[in-house]
Amino acid sequence: MKPEVRFHIRDGKQVAELAIGPGKVALLEAIGQTGSITSSAKKLGMSYRRAWLLVDETNRCLVRPAVQTAAGGQRGGGTSLTPVGVELVRRYRDLEHQTEMAVTRELKPLLRSIPRGDRSAK
Amino acid sequence: MKPEVRFHIRDGKQVAELAIGPGKVALLEAIGQTGSITSSAKKLGMSYRRAWLLVDETNRCLVRPAVQTAAGGQRGGGTSLTPVGVELVRRYRDLEHQTEMAVTRELKPLLRSIPRGDRSAK
Repeated sequence: MKPEVRFHIRDGKQVAELAIGPGKVALLEAIGQTGSITSSAKKLGMSYRRAWLLVDETNRCLVRPAVQTAAGGQRGGGTSLTPVGVELVRRYRDLEHQTEMAVTRELKPLLRSIPRGDRSAK
Repeated sequence: MKPEVRFHIRDGKQVAELAIGPGKVALLEAIGQTGSITSSAKKLGMSYRRAWLLVDETNRCLVRPAVQTAAGGQRGGGTSLTPVGVELVRRYRDLEHQTEMAVTRELKPLLRSIPRGDRSAK
């Protein structure tokens, strides 16, 4: 028994564009971990172009950008999350966790538990 | 700005079968309103067969069935929700509403509000 929770925030007018959802949050998380859009795109199985477009969309729909790129330097410019990016990921994952717990608490008592033996026999 | 919340509960072993999600909840809700699987299927744009299979799956994964059919009688047997069916719909919709409010409260402050004029100009 595993709850799966997904939420999106959409702008009513521009459904495709101004949205925050699980895909963008996973991408931000990967950027925070790898410091690179290229590595993050590879990790999530998407093209660099797709990842870049998602980052751009995310940056444009937030009060301040979530991802920043430092030009130049020894590493040729690193990519990292801004405080807003870090906060967005944190809040999204917290909401997800809280909702999973609430779904489990409210819905699990209504579900039949299936004994392992019974399940494998079917 | 509109949050969209979806959650599923899946059985880890039988992903396709033992799940409760927004589709089944909407179907139960329609059955509660129309008293008919045929009308509910039509309302939700699915075949009678599909609706019947979803009801059967739902009944089998709950502690007690969510939908009951009274055979015979003047109306040729009515279909209705059991107390467990009513409770499942109520709990699911409550969770949805609570989560929408939490998502709005936590994520909206990070989102840029777009003036109407600016939006229509793009």
